[in-house]
Amino acid sequence: MPMESVSPSIGWGVLHLLYRVDRERAEQDPGAAKRIVDAVASLEADGHHALVFAVLGHKADLGVMAYGPDLARLHAFQQELLVGPLVPDSSFVSLTELSEYSASEDDEEARLRSEEGLTDPLEIEARLVVWRERIEHYRENRLHPQLPRRKVIGFYPMSKRRQGEDNWYRLPFAARKELMAGHARIGRTYAGRVLQLITGSTGLDDWEWGVTLLTDDPVVLKDIVNEMRFDDVSARYGEFGPFYTGLVLEPRDALERVGLR
Amino acid sequence: MPMESVSPSIGWGVLHLLYRVDRERAEQDPGAAKRIVDAVASLEADGHHALVFAVLGHKADLGVMAYGPDLARLHAFQQELLVGPLVPDSSFVSLTELSEYSASEDDEEARLRSEEGLTDPLEIEARLVVWRERIEHYRENRLHPQLPRRKVIGFYPMSKRRQGEDNWYRLPFAARKELMAGHARIGRTYAGRVLQLITGSTGLDDWEWGVTLLTDDPVVLKDIVNEMRFDDVSARYGEFGPFYTGLVLEPRDALERVGLR
Amino acid sequence: MPMESVSPSIGWGVLHLLYRVDRERAEQDPGAAKRIVDAVASLEADGHHALVFAVLGHKADLGVMAYGPDLARLHAFQQELLVGPLVPDSSFVSLTELSEYSASEDDEEARLRSEEGLTDPLEIEARLVVWRERIEHYRENRLHPQLPRRKVIGFYPMSKRRQGEDNWYRLPFAARKELMAGHARIGRTYAGRVLQLITGSTGLDDWEWGVTLLTDDPVVLKDIVNEMRFDDVSARYGEFGPFYTGLVLEPRDALERVGLR
Amino acid sequence: MPMESVSPSIGWGVLHLLYRVDRERAEQDPGAAKRIVDAVASLEADGHHALVFAVLGHKADLGVMAYGPDLARLHAFQQELLVGPLVPDSSFVSLTELSEYSASEDDEEARLRSEEGLTDPLEIEARLVVWRERIEHYRENRLHPQLPRRKVIGFYPMSKRRQGEDNWYRLPFAARKELMAGHARIGRTYAGRVLQLITGSTGLDDWEWGVTLLTDDPVVLKDIVNEMRFDDVSARYGEFGPFYTGLVLEPRDALERVGLR
Amino acid sequence: MPMESVSPSIGWGVLHLLYRVDRERAEQDPGAAKRIVDAVASLEADGHHALVFAVLGHKADLGVMAYGPDLARLHAFQQELLVGPLVPDSSFVSLTELSEYSASEDDEEARLRSEEGLTDPLEIEARLVVWRERIEHYRENRLHPQLPRRKVIGFYPMSKRRQGEDNWYRLPFAARKELMAGHARIGRTYAGRVLQLITGSTGLDDWEWGVTLLTDDPVVLKDIVNEMRFDDVSARYGEFGPFYTGLVLEPRDALERVGLR
Repeated sequence: MPMESVSPSIGWGVLHLLYRVDRERAEQDPGAAKRIVDAVASLEADGHHALVFAVLGHKADLGVMAYGPDLARLHAFQQELLVGPLVPDSSFVSLTELSEYSASEDDEEARLRSEEGLTDPLEIEARLVVWRERIEHYRENRLHPQLPRRKVIGFYPMSKRRQGEDNWYRLPFAARKELMAGHARIGRTYAGRVLQLITGSTGLDDWEWGVTLLTDDPVVLKDIVNEMRFDDVSARYGEFGPFYTGLVLEPRDALERVGLR
Repeated sequence: MPMESVSPSIGWGVLHLLYRVDRERAEQDPGAAKRIVDAVASLEADGHHALVFAVLGHKADLGVMAYGPDLARLHAFQQELLVGPLVPDSSFVSLTELSEYSASEDDEEARLRSEEGLTDPLEIEARLVVWRERIEHYRENRLHPQLPRRKVIGFYPMSKRRQGEDNWYRLPFAARKELMAGHARIGRTYAGRVLQLITGSTGLDDWEWGVTLLTDDPVVLKDIVNEMRFDDVSARYGEFGPFYTGLVLEPRDALERVGLR
Repeated sequence: MPMESVSPSIGWGVLHLLYRVDRERAEQDPGAAKRIVDAVASLEADGHHALVFAVLGHKADLGVMAYGPDLARLHAFQQELLVGPLVPDSSFVSLTELSEYSASEDDEEARLRSEEGLTDPLEIEARLVVWRERIEHYRENRLHPQLPRRKVIGFYPMSKRRQGEDNWYRLPFAARKELMAGHARIGRTYAGRVLQLITGSTGLDDWEWGVTLLTDDPVVLKDIVNEMRFDDVSARYGEFGPFYTGLVLEPRDALERVGLR
Repeated sequence: MPMESVSPSIGWGVLHLLYRVDRERAEQDPGAAKRIVDAVASLEADGHHALVFAVLGHKADLGVMAYGPDLARLHAFQQELLVGPLVPDSSFVSLTELSEYSASEDDEEARLRSEEGLTDPLEIEARLVVWRERIEHYRENRLHPQLPRRKVIGFYPMSKRRQGEDNWYRLPFAARKELMAGHARIGRTYAGRVLQLITGSTGLDDWEWGVTLLTDDPVVLKDIVNEMRFDDVSARYGEFGPFYTGLVLEPRDALERVGLR
Repeated sequence: MPMESVSPSIGWGVLHLLYRVDRERAEQDPGAAKRIVDAVASLEADGHHALVFAVLGHKADLGVMAYGPDLARLHAFQQELLVGPLVPDSSFVSLTELSEYSASEDDEEARLRSEEGLTDPLEIEARLVVWRERIEHYRENRLHPQLPRRKVIGFYPMSKRRQGEDNWYRLPFAARKELMAGHARIGRTYAGRVLQLITGSTGLDDWEWGVTLLTDDPVVLKDIVNEMRFDDVSARYGEFGPFYTGLVLEPRDALERVGLR
């Protein structure tokens, strides 16, 4: 059956998939690990990506974050993994997206004038050329990410609160933009120590966003989430779903670590 | 056993049915896909309808939205699907219904006078004739829908909030009608890009309404729900249940995609 | 073992029992339907009652509402149903009871004087004689109900809210009585279209009351619960549990519909 | 392996244990009932106690309330019951304890002076001698209970609310003591009709207290909990967990009732 | 496969792992207990630690608290335990950490001056030397704990509340520090009777901290948590997850107690 592609008009599809390993089936199915490794390779050959991790604790045994341009291809991959000892547990469906609160070119020009005191139009234009390039690169990375390999992955879904006085969706846009800018500033102090990808799931899954963090130092997962929690975006307006922590490995190694050889 | 029909006095019955596939039973039951396809065909031959979709993520494997005039017939269909490898997971029971907040003929006449400045009774009557026809068509579509085939389905149940100051059920009718009119205006800006069917489940299932969205572009599911969330109807008064996202396919194709051949 | 009876000093015991059907056991146990039908017949021969229904959607396959004077007999019946392919799912334990807010004879006499303008003691007494008989009949029906056969059953548990300003249990008795009288007036406008039985479960199960609705038209389940939700008794003070909707059938027919022959 | 005892410095350990019966294992294990009866007898021979009950509804099939001085002995008993067809469902771990709000000797002396108008020191002392004896007996019964056999058991866990204005843990001791005294007065009006044992589980299980009620009339379970709910201790400050209702029987009879012979 | 270590830059990894015992597999796998005991011994030989306990009640059968410098080693241990009759149930992932509210040297010097009235710089310095040593020891114990053997373990996760007026994360640092100092003072009155280890899980698991208590007297678990609940840190700002209570034993003894020989 040839597959009709289902491609979002903006961004890529993202599936965070969590599995338990059925130990008895695993023992009777010595080819399972190879099949899964092949499915990952085939997905990547089709222009999609997958990150495989062994989960710490008992929330799941194995995690796979699969993403790319075609939801039908991602669904086919999801189904391939179910043949054998992997038992589906939980999952999260989202799309990559740009933040609606990111700074515009006007914002940047205003900042250059007020914060850096620039007045020469040519100098400002020169700086905006650089800014445009950087932003273009940033946007490309958010919409079509190429995630680097780090030792540890953290993942959690979240929503903005709509509760009594603490209702994010009743704030004016300007107030939300300012709050998000402060939140982003905290995030930037962690640049280099952690990579963060936020994907959108409003209307697609039970939470509104998924947050994927990649780092080599598990302490950083704790520090960044803790520090941000004191910021009003989280303190007043954040609702958090389950947190998953995993060890990112080569697919074959991750499978071996969870009993699939 | 001849079945006594159970037909709502207004509207149709609607079942959103979610299933897991038992892979082991599927392998031992090569006729399962054909039986399910036949059950769908037989349901449609009896004047009912079914939409079959493969679910993204692990909330379920397969979804079926079945609807039509007779709840007893829909129940018989529901039971037919359980014979074999489909394991029931969750479901949602509702009835098609008209909104109690839709514009009346008096509303339309007032609008023609105030917004469009009409005064000639004959001209107004001519416009109302057109309006009546359009509304009649719209109502028929809500009560006895013929859903078009789109690539993607979104489904979620919702209720109106009854919490402290944010209690929908304590608002006067006029306030609710005005709020719903604004909400509907947002919906109409998505006309052509997404089809929306709202069905009523107060007293029938745990949530008060079910929202079914059909589109070819998954981004639209995210955009419409996100945009509406800033409207007070959702921001202050909306409570949302689980969100399901699926790929709508021909029954046989959907079954094949989830491992039933 | 002769059973010692466990009889409430007022009212009857009521068990709402929900089951899944284990299809594999059902196939290996062709006598199951007959055993269950016999168990129902035997329960009724002992002066108890049972209503059997096929559940719409996947919350359960089969429901049984069993009620009567002896909790030990009802428990024995509950256990008989477990032998075979019926897998217990959820349940609700309650007792029939009179409302503590029902009108007293003094209330009725005051009403006759104020609303109907009666003053003649003999006329009032004559009216009270009729009232007493009607109330006696109503009370008997609530405490020892003989539920009629209708096509559709709706069941849900509920509690009164105890939350901030919306705390039912902090209202004075007179305020609660007035609120409940208004609520009952809505209910009475549905007389003939739906039969409603409210049973008490405070201290017996997780919710405070169970509401059983019987009707031939499923729209009525939606309409009555929706209309009551705008009344403050529900709007401010109602908390609702899961809603079940089922098709009431002869026991043998209900069992056949869910795969037990 | 000789067991090292684990004995609380005050009071006894209490385990409320709920089980499902695995019918298939039960059929293949005809000695199960005898083993369980023997385990109960052996527990009691070791100075501990057990109450066995058949559960109404589908929350569980069988309940066992085991209590006594040694948590290690109670744990060994808990493990003995797991060998065979009993499948553990839920449970509640607590310790017997005295209420921190019970009247002191000073309270009683003040009451004798103010309510009964006593002034003669000798007379007061004579009354206090009787009071001390009664209190000593009451305390002994709470810490080392010998529960009587009644037909029906009710059990539920509860906590005190910590929510906005309704925060029990922010009330001064005197206010809490007065509230609890009023609550206790309601309880005493049920003396003779129901026996109530409150055990403490703060820090040991998810709720702060467990309430065990024993009575011959199931109506009393509903009446006492309902009446107390209007008291501010429950209305404003009570949070309630799941309610279990069971029929208390001789162990062998209870087991037979749930399919273990 | 040689394992690449995953070591937090500060503190150790901690896994609280809860298991059910599959009785049927246990009977068919007489070597299971030995394998688990060997896995614990091997973990400890690698510089990590494990505490094994039998769980009271039905929340789980067996608990293991494993901790040490390398998350990859802890994950490997976690996977070793899954081979055989141990079925993973729940878990908690955290890291040891210092409190951000602990007294600084400046705090201590201020205290020496104000509370103890010291003024002589030499005397103050002498006291600070002792303080530094004690704090160093305390910090070392929190980051790299060597937990003593006690008869009973209590474990629960918790978070700080972010709700309306009771929002911990909106308090200024000084207010939080003062609240935590009062909370710690209560804790210190239990010194010698209970050992408490708080580990951080913000960003790693669903709750923000895990609290592990070790004592010989189960009453102390109840008393310390109850007393602290009246302190505003808990009363207003504490949210608590599930509480586990277990009997700490030698690994072989704990396994035997839960049916693994």
